[in-house]
Parts: sequence; structure tokens; C-alpha cells
Amino acid sequence: MIGAAGENVPADARIEAAMRRALQASAQVHGITSPNPPVGCVVLDAAGEVVGAGATAPPGGPHAEIVALRQAGDRAAGGTAVVTLEPCSHFGRTPPCTDALIAAGITTVHVALPDPNPIASGGATVLRDAGVAVTVGTLAGEVARGPLRAWLHAVRTARPHVTWKLAASLDGRSAAADGTSRWITGPDARAQVHALRATADAIVVGTGTALADDPALTARNADGTAWAHQPLRVVVGHRDLPAGSKLDAPDVLHVRSHDPDTVLAVLRERGVVDVLLEGGPRLAGAFLAAGRVDRVLAYLAPALLGAGPAALADAGVGTIGDIRRLHVDTVCRVGTDVLIDARPGAELLEKGTQ
Amino acid sequence: MIGAAGENVPADARIEAAMRRALQASAQVHGITSPNPPVGCVVLDAAGEVVGAGATAPPGGPHAEIVALRQAGDRAAGGTAVVTLEPCSHFGRTPPCTDALIAAGITTVHVALPDPNPIASGGATVLRDAGVAVTVGTLAGEVARGPLRAWLHAVRTARPHVTWKLAASLDGRSAAADGTSRWITGPDARAQVHALRATADAIVVGTGTALADDPALTARNADGTAWAHQPLRVVVGHRDLPAGSKLDAPDVLHVRSHDPDTVLAVLRERGVVDVLLEGGPRLAGAFLAAGRVDRVLAYLAPALLGAGPAALADAGVGTIGDIRRLHVDTVCRVGTDVLIDARPGAELLEKGTQ
Ligand SMILES: NC(=O)c1ccc[n+]([C@@H]2O[C@H](COP(=O)([O-])OP(=O)(O)OC[C@H]3O[C@@H](n4cnc5c(N)ncnc54)[C@H](OP(=O)(O)O)[C@@H]3O)[C@@H](O)[C@H]2O)c1
Ligand SMILES: NC(=O)c1ccc[n+]([C@@H]2O[C@H](COP(=O)([O-])OP(=O)(O)OC[C@H]3O[C@@H](n4cnc5c(N)ncnc54)[C@H](OP(=O)(O)O)[C@@H]3O)[C@@H](O)[C@H]2O)c1
Repeated sequence: MIGAAGENVPADARIEAAMRRALQASAQVHGITSPNPPVGCVVLDAAGEVVGAGATAPPGGPHAEIVALRQAGDRAAGGTAVVTLEPCSHFGRTPPCTDALIAAGITTVHVALPDPNPIASGGATVLRDAGVAVTVGTLAGEVARGPLRAWLHAVRTARPHVTWKLAASLDGRSAAADGTSRWITGPDARAQVHALRATADAIVVGTGTALADDPALTARNADGTAWAHQPLRVVVGHRDLPAGSKLDAPDVLHVRSHDPDTVLAVLRERGVVDVLLEGGPRLAGAFLAAGRVDRVLAYLAPALLGAGPAALADAGVGTIGDIRRLHVDTVCRVGTDVLIDARPGAELLEKGTQ
Repeated sequence: MIGAAGENVPADARIEAAMRRALQASAQVHGITSPNPPVGCVVLDAAGEVVGAGATAPPGGPHAEIVALRQAGDRAAGGTAVVTLEPCSHFGRTPPCTDALIAAGITTVHVALPDPNPIASGGATVLRDAGVAVTVGTLAGEVARGPLRAWLHAVRTARPHVTWKLAASLDGRSAAADGTSRWITGPDARAQVHALRATADAIVVGTGTALADDPALTARNADGTAWAHQPLRVVVGHRDLPAGSKLDAPDVLHVRSHDPDTVLAVLRERGVVDVLLEGGPRLAGAFLAAGRVDRVLAYLAPALLGAGPAALADAGVGTIGDIRRLHVDTVCRVGTDVLIDARPGAELLEKGTQ
């Protein structure tokens, strides 16, 4: 029997399929839930049939469990809930999800990841005390690499999660000798970056990039139309932007500092969990040197320049022994380009974060 | 019936399996046959059983077909020969292979690629005139990307084939700011480069690399022992190397020129077909600018430097419109590193080679 033995019972294929569906549901709200986590939930009736699926609504709205339970209605009684994150047991802006699960007559709950948040955790205990069977760990690795990644990081470190995206030629240059750079990577990679922006809470660039490129930093479709969710746009550095530049706007945050931790603290105050750092080379170097890059997405175009600005400037490495090693999570082709998705290795984490 | 309809008849699975085996046999002699092509041959008896397999011997020795026929002996009568390249029909240093196939009683011959060499071609016609059924095209693409690649290129262009190998960090640097570079890539990538050297006819570096690194440029195993085949070592540039440096040796060719075509002409005269260009950045830039790089093997370490020499210097690209696009053949992981195997796109070929 699933759940009877408590935690870490291997979930069967049906539960894994439901967890994947919950994960998919959470991906649809990735970007619009912060500071709350993008959670997904699937409810199965007593016969094991899917009768509800939902994901976290924007702040103030219902959590994933409530959305899924509402959809399931009476059919939740005697059923199973499959959730990417341990249900909350506290009153926040909404009542505890544990209460709703118990009230709906759910008898088994499968959770991928325990809630690392000391205020919210204890949901599994509350459920068990009410006689609900609970397992934790279904597809834990997959879920941890998914939409919850940034939120989990932010809870653990009290800092937003930073993804540095770079686009470069195979020889590591992000523009030609004369400064022209449109386009190094292809349309598929560029579309992916726009989709990535739509899942981020904030996009950050240095004044150097703002002054050189005058970018809009919006998430747009190939036809130029804007995505529904637009991240907070952030410019970092002491210099002013000229009036009329695209980032000289009331809804753009200008952080006049050179300290990555100051930037991240300001963003955290605003509820930002997931940061997309789009460069340029100097700001990225400063974040790397400070150990404040948690993910590297390198879009490499199979093309050579041989001259032009490098994608990365000084990152505090003077000799080969200090090279900043990354662990590669995945390598894949995106259209004609190659995407390397990596994260700092243990070595860098030690150096940078302590 | 295989072969009855002439060329381009789809070969069956058994013939394809035999062709793969012939390809494997040819890989074992890759590097030791130049200026002859590294060919592989498998002989099947009348019942379709493999009774012989062979590959080209070093210059002056027997061709692949002869090696395989000798192994097959009487069992070749009424059998089939599967060869990566169209058998020769002319007297070179050895008698024509077509004669040997006919004399052995072979009734069907499957060839992957026609011989592009005007002197040697016509083997299929000679065989057909003698009543042997011949097909051309089995696994043609796979074979063309294999050990014959450089030789085919050399026949078509009258120039050796040039593979540029680079090892760099994700941000395109081949050393740290202080010049240290051991090691950016990991042991698996380094072992693969040594194996690659063992298949090349010549390894080429500029005097800049020779003076900075004093490399041995030999093909060694992980334990330091040398591979049986060692390529010709070549240094390019006007400067002398100091007495006692590893490349100041009688068996090292020093080409005092800055012109890639002069370098390639000198190498061709020596029977070199397959060149491994190991840099450094300036010499590689010169070869790229001249359109004389036919394959790029980029070993990228998932690591960031942010400073230090670039893997590639001036390649004649001043603006983004002139970026040298490559076509990616494969992307794979080699130990902890990422290998991108690419070739110049049509655009570059047009610009560079005409
Ligand atoms: N291909 C890509 O992926 C990509 C992405 C972005 C940009 N780029 C290119 O990068 C070029 C701009 O380069 P960049 O290096 O000037 O851009 P940058 O990194 O965006 O901006 C540099 C500025 O950031 C500010 N800054 C904040 N913290 C800093 C710190 N700790 N250290 C140093 N500076 C800090 C400084 O502003 P103040 O001087 O105002 O204080 C500095 O001048 C543009 O040509 C752009 O096209 C390429
Ligand atoms: N990671 C890697 O994959 C890798 C590989 C190799 C080297 N490297 C690094 O590269 C650095 C050396 O850089 P480098 O650029 O000086 O090395 P290089 O390209 O090996 O040598 C440059 C020299 O090549 C000669 N040369 C021949 N034809 C040329 C042309 N058309 N244009 C310009 N020069 C031509 C010139 O020699 P003369 O001045 O004598 O005429 C020039 O000084 C070393 O630190 C080495 O470690 C890295």
C-alpha cells in the first residue's frame, strides 16, 4: 500500500504520471506567483482517475491544492492528492491547504519536495495527525530542477536565484569588432530567451548594456507582441540613462550600486525570487566573482568571430587554479545553436557563498 | 536481387553490417596510409558469411581488398566484397584490385563511395565488364564522414584537409590572465586529442605556441607512452626556436611563411593528407580567414575565466555580417567537457575557397 509505511515509499507509475502532470501545471504559472512558489497539484479520485489539476494563482489567490480540489469537487473524497511541494499548514494570505485537503476527504497525499520554509513546513505532520497517508520524494530531483528551483534557492539562502544568460560565438565573443551583434544566435534561441524572460521576476543588465544597446528587455513573441507576464526591468550602475532611452521609464528599477548583494537585497524586498541576469560582461563578471550566479545558460552559436568584445569580463580569476568550474546539467541543440545549462560546481559554491 | 539493377540499389541489412565492419577496419589504419586512402573491405562467401576483413596497409603494402581476399582464400569464390571505396583499376605501387577481385571469383561488389580520383576511378566499370554485379552508395554518408574524409577532400581540392582543434573555457579563453592553461579541459578530452594526433599525418602550430608552451606535439597514452604512429610535427612562422626546445629537432618541419596555402602546398608535397591544426589563436585565425579550415573540433570546458588570451585571434571578421558560420555535425560530452564537431557552412566555403 502506498504511503502506509510513511515517507520515501517508492511511488508507482500512476503517481509519477500524476506528479509529471502537476509539474506541467506549475510550469504554466512559472513567473506569476512570486513571492509564492509555483506549485502544481493533481487530485485523483478513489479509483485513481484524475479529477482535478491546478497550480498556484498570483499572490492573494488560491494555492494549487485549492484550485485542484475545487475542480475535483465531491470526487476528491477518498482520493489522492499529488503535489510538487508539501502543503502549507499555516494561515498566510490564504487558509492552510492541509485543512482543505482533510475537509475534502483526501486520504493519501504524495509530495515531491518537503517545504524548506520553517513557517510553512509541518504540513505532512498535520496531515498524518489527521489520518492522511503521506509520502515525500516522488520525482524529487525532477521537481527540484523545475519551476520551484528559484523559490527553493531563495528560501534556503535568503537571496533571489540568479540565472546568467549569455549568447556568444564558439570563441566566446558577444559582438563583432565593430560592436555589431544582431544576430549571433538564431531565431529559436532568441525565442527561448523571450520565453525565459516571461518566467522571471526580474531582468537585470548593467548601465553599459543599457547605454550601448538601449534594449527594451521585454518578453515578446516572434511577431513582436508582448507576453502576458513581463518581469521587472532592472538597470545596475551609477551612470544615468539619457532621457528617452527605453529603460528610462517609471517602471524600471535603477539600482545605483556595484555590489551584487545590494542589488539582490533590493530585489528581494520587492518579492523577486527569480532573476535573469542578461549581462553585460562586466556585471556578469561581478556577480560571478561574488559567487552570486546560480545557473549559467550559455547559448553558443556555431560561428567564429576572432575579434570583438568577450561575453564575460573580469570574474576575479587570475590564474588557472582559480578557474570557475561549472557542473553541466544538460547540453542540447536549440535550432542551429548549442545550449549549455550549467551551475557552479561545489568548488565555486564554497568559494563564493561562504 | 542486389546489384542486378546496377547502382543505387538499396543494400540489405547484412550488407550494411558488413560495410560497418569494413568502416571499423579502416579506422584501425587511419593515420598510417597516406597518401593512400584508409579503405576497409569485408569479404562474404556465397552463403553470406564473413570470411575476410582487411584495411589498407602502409604505402607500398597491399590494399584493403587484397588483405581481405587473402584472408578469405578459396571461400571468396562466388562471394561478395563490401568496400568503403571503389576498387582501383590501375597499376600504382600495387596491381589493380579489380583484377584480384575478378580472379578470386567475387560475383558481387558493394561500394560505399565512388573513387573521385580520375586516375583510379573506373573500377566499377571494369568489374561490371567482367560480369560482376556492382552497387555504389551503401552507407555513403557515414563512410564519407569517417576515416576517408580527409583523403576525399584532398583529392577533390588538391589540398590537405585541415582540422582545427581548440580547447577553451565556455567564454572562449584558452588560458588564464597569467598565461597558465594546464588544464582547462579534462583528462578524457586530452586523451581524445592524443588519439586524434595518432590519426593525423601532420600536427601544425605557430611559432607563438612553440615559443610559449614548448609542446612535444606527440601522441601519447595517459601513462606517457607514445602511440605507434606519430604525425609529422610542423611549426609555422619566421622566428627561430631556441636550441634545445622540443620542436627544435631534425624531424620537425619548420615552414617559414605566413601563407596558409604555402604551408599546405609544402605538406602536400610530403604526402600529407590529414592536418591537425592545434593553433594557436593567430595561426588558426589566418587559416580561417583564408578559408583553409575544413573541420572545427571545439573542446569546451564548462568553466569560466573572464580574462586571459582568446582561443581565436583575428580571422578577418570585422562586422557581424561577416561572422564565420559553421554547420554542427555533432555535439557530445567528453568526460566533463563538451565537444562541438562542426564544419564551415556553405557561406564560408563560398567566401573562402573560391
Ligand atoms: N551577448 C550577450 O549575451 C550580451 C548581453 C549583454 C550585453 N552585451 C554587450 O555588452 C556590452 C556592454 O558591456 P559592459 O561590460 O559595459 O556592460 P554591463 O556589464 O551591462 O555594464 C557595465 C556597467 O555595470 C555597472 N556595474 C554594476 N556593478 C558593477 C561591478 N561590480 N563592476 C563593474 N561594473 C558594475 C557599471 O556601471 P556604472 O559605470 O554606471 O557605475 C558598469 O559600467 C554591450 O556592447 C552589449 O551589447 C552582450
Ligand atoms: N587552448 C588551445 O587550444 C591553444 C592551442 C594552441 C596555443 N594556445 C596558446 O596560444 C598562445 C600563443 O598565441 P599565438 O597567437 O602567438 O600563437 P600561434 O598562432 O601558434 O603563433 C603565432 C605565430 O604564427 C606565425 N604565423 C604564421 N602564419 C601567420 C599568419 N598568417 N598570421 C599571423 N601569424 C602567423 C607567426 O610567427 P612569426 O612571428 O615567427 O613569423 C606568429 O607570430 C600560447 O599561449 C598558447 O598556450 C592555446
